[in-house]
Parts: sequence; structure tokens; C-alpha cells
Amino acid sequence: MPTTRVAVCQYAIDIDDPAGTLERLRASVAEAADSQPQVIVFPELCTSGYVFHDIAEAQSRSEPVDGPTVQLFRELSLKHHAIVVGGFCERSDGERPFNSAAVVEDGEVLVVYRKTHLWDTEKLIFAAGDEPAPVVDTSVGKIAVMICYDAEFPEMVGSVARRGAQLVIAPSNWPAKHIPPGERSSEVIKAQAFAAVNHVFTLVCDRVGPERGVDWIGASVVCDVEGYPVAGPAEGKAVVLVANLDLDGALVKNVSANNDAFSDRRPNLY
Amino acid sequence: MPTTRVAVCQYAIDIDDPAGTLERLRASVAEAADSQPQVIVFPELCTSGYVFHDIAEAQSRSEPVDGPTVQLFRELSLKHHAIVVGGFCERSDGERPFNSAAVVEDGEVLVVYRKTHLWDTEKLIFAAGDEPAPVVDTSVGKIAVMICYDAEFPEMVGSVARRGAQLVIAPSNWPAKHIPPGERSSEVIKAQAFAAVNHVFTLVCDRVGPERGVDWIGASVVCDVEGYPVAGPAEGKAVVLVANLDLDGALVKNVSANNDAFSDRRPNLY
Repeated sequence: MPTTRVAVCQYAIDIDDPAGTLERLRASVAEAADSQPQVIVFPELCTSGYVFHDIAEAQSRSEPVDGPTVQLFRELSLKHHAIVVGGFCERSDGERPFNSAAVVEDGEVLVVYRKTHLWDTEKLIFAAGDEPAPVVDTSVGKIAVMICYDAEFPEMVGSVARRGAQLVIAPSNWPAKHIPPGERSSEVIKAQAFAAVNHVFTLVCDRVGPERGVDWIGASVVCDVEGYPVAGPAEGKAVVLVANLDLDGALVKNVSANNDAFSDRRPNLY
Repeated sequence: MPTTRVAVCQYAIDIDDPAGTLERLRASVAEAADSQPQVIVFPELCTSGYVFHDIAEAQSRSEPVDGPTVQLFRELSLKHHAIVVGGFCERSDGERPFNSAAVVEDGEVLVVYRKTHLWDTEKLIFAAGDEPAPVVDTSVGKIAVMICYDAEFPEMVGSVARRGAQLVIAPSNWPAKHIPPGERSSEVIKAQAFAAVNHVFTLVCDRVGPERGVDWIGASVVCDVEGYPVAGPAEGKAVVLVANLDLDGALVKNVSANNDAFSDRRPNLY
């Protein structure tokens, strides 16, 4: 059974310490490299940080696709023979930047996706993308990418699954919130549920902090096609999660002898 | 803050012991009544049992809406001043019966719903309904009803939520399956996730067994609008779960200062 090894790099990001952030990203990759993963994932806005004061600050940190962050993804993909997925603050022609993510393989950018569901004050900072989440062919199979809050919409995950995605990757920044004792955060629960619903693998790369007074859940997770975690959820600390996934398992949609996760849907009733 | 008390009656159903099944249903109601609930919920096919040998056997156990099971719901609704929701095997004009559920209040049938997503060998026994899951006005608020596998389709729960449902009730029979140690079953995870996605309360009334060699998860659960269990998940034993729900909480869809669970959706991207 061919397996795909994925590494999820959950590290501390600080908008007021770009050099330290980059150093922690690199240390995280070095740790991941020990496992020789075929896929390396970074968080949302993985070099810039998240808690921008205003549009002007976000624009000042924004980069074109040929800027230093995606260039770093290209170098790392070549050095580690791995697909690299991560988020960056993308410069736009307009007033506001995009909250974007790139998928890079063999030094080439396969796709850039611009977040379409903006969370809270992101709506005051970023322009929302207007294109569906992409599903890209890679050497390990079909990978979809979306960003953080995007992945909390079941139709969003369902859409990429029905377009053939085997692994749905969501670079994320999950702000801390009240979670009842003993419970997993509802974000993790959604990642589990949407994996099970669509019989796909889901992978969330969260981050830790703190950053300008905001704390983070730090609950990166990798879920199998039945919705059970195979790595994580992480527990709020910097960590590299590694998991071996049989991505062929996501090509089969039978959920019982007589059921199929896709053809059982009855869209005219919804 | 007005609260609605719900009671979830998870008891042993046995297709080969209808009298005993009815006795356990009644004992469960008696226990529930101590809490003076405004809503009492029974499982799917709560008097007939589930593991039918064939269509003929299911037809022989089927009942019209004015048959004994829904009549019992009517009596119990009057006696306990409660809304009663439960599943029954509904006689049809055709060859196959329906796997149905009724919502009853004040001795009156508010709605009968016929399961639209049939699980596994149900496809060999039942006719599937062709109507969307209903949302009904009750004395406690708007209640939606669907049955077991129906509730595993996020669009199904989303649909009733957008039609105003505050509490989504799913009488269920969850067959046992492999669940990794320490994990909740993926069915529970979906009930949690879809509550959080739609900012509604979800309630699953499961059953226990065994029945003709089939075991059951027995994981009835009531989830709040953030997706966290407020009662259950039950642990495979007969039990009455009781929870107090502020159903007004499901009327508000703000999930942050700048986010709304419904208007944030971008259906043209899915």
C-alpha cells in the first residue's frame, strides 16, 4: 500500500519578529526533514504574521508570488524533494492584499489560492478571493488547498472532494476561544467531520503564538477518511506532526455495501 | 433565559420482542417524565425494530399514521404535556414501507417525515421519501426532523437550519463499527460539527440492542450551537439523557463580530 508522508509544521509566528518567525519556520522544516516527508505544510500567513493593525501594515508586508516567501517554498521543495504548501500575504493591484496560499512542487508554483471566506477583522484588512478552492495534480495525488475559515464550510470541502481531491490542506491560524474542558475545539471537530463526510483526508496546519495579545489554539490535525485523527490534534505547543497516508483510500467512496458518500447525496432536497 | 428541556430515550429495541420493546419504551418515558421535559425523543423505528429479514416482514410490521405507534406518541404528548418525536415503520400504498418519523404535540400529528437517505440494507427494504426534511413550528420553537443517515449529510442539516430550525432532531439506529480507542464515533462528530456550522442545536436519539446479531453504538447526544455536547454522548447503555436548551441561541448566527454563519457562505464557489 503506497503511503504519502506528510509533515505539519506548527510553530510560533510573531508579526513583530519576522526574523525569529523565519528562524522557527526553518527549524520546523529541519525537524520535519528527518522523516523525509513528501508533503510539508506551513500555517496561514506563515512568514508575515496575522494580527495586522490595518490595511497599510498588511500591504507593507505583502509580497508578489515571486517574492521571498514563495521563493522559500520553491527552495525548500527542491532541497527536501517535497511538495510545500503554506500561506502568505499576497500583494494585489488594489488597495488590499489577499490572504493566499501556494502549492509548490519541484521548485514550481502549481497554484496560488486566495482565501474566499474571511474571518472577523480580516474583513477590514484583506480582499477576498473570488475563485473556488483549487484541486491540483501532484506526484502524490490530487491535493486541494483552502485557508482556515474556508474549511469550516462543509460545501467548500465537499466541492473539492467531488472534484477529486484526496487530501484537503488548510493552512490556518485558529484564534484561541473558550473550549469546554475535555473537548476538542469545534474547528478540529469540523476537520474530522468533513473528512468522514467526503471520505477524504483533511490536514490543518495551525500555529502558536502569542501575537499582539492574541493566543491560538495550536491544534493542527491530520484526519483519515473515516474522520479519525491520525496525527494530532496538537496541544497548543510548537510541534511537527508526521503522518503516513494511503491517499488511494480517498478514491473509494463506498461507506457500506450499499452506500456511496457522493451518489447518496440528494441535492434537489437541500 | 427561557430554556427547553429535552429528554432523549435510548433503550433496547428488539424486533423479535415487540412487547418487551414497548415495555422498555414506556419505562424510558416514565424515567424521562421525572424531569418534566417539553420534548421527548425516541429512536428510529422505535417500536418495530430495525433488522428486518425482507420487505414482506417490514410490510407486516408497518403501520399507517393512525396506527398504534403514532397513537402512542399522541397519548404520551397529552399525558406528559410534551412534544414527542420518534420513528416508525410507515405503511405505504406501494410494495415497500417508509422509514418515517412523526412530530406530535398536544395529541396532534404536526408532521410525518419519510427518510430520504437510506442506509445499507434499508435500500433493499424501504422506499425512500422524496420530500425535504420538514421544519415545524412548535410551542418551544422551530424543530426539524430527519432520520439517522440523513443527518450525516451537511447540506441536509444546513437546509433545515436556513429554513429556521433551531433544534434538529434525528431519531437514529447507529450500527456498531470500529471506533479507534478514545475516539467518539464519526456519527457523533458529525452531529457536533453540523451544530457548530449552522449555529443550531442537534439531537440524536440512538438505541441499544443487540438485535438479530447486530450491535449498536448507543451514543445519543445533544449538541449546543457551538458544537459541544450538553448531554451525552451516551456510552452504549440504555439511558435517558436530559438537557436544558436555550433555543433562542439558535436564532443568532453571528459567529464573530464580523461573521455570520449563513451570510458568510459563498454558494457560487461550491
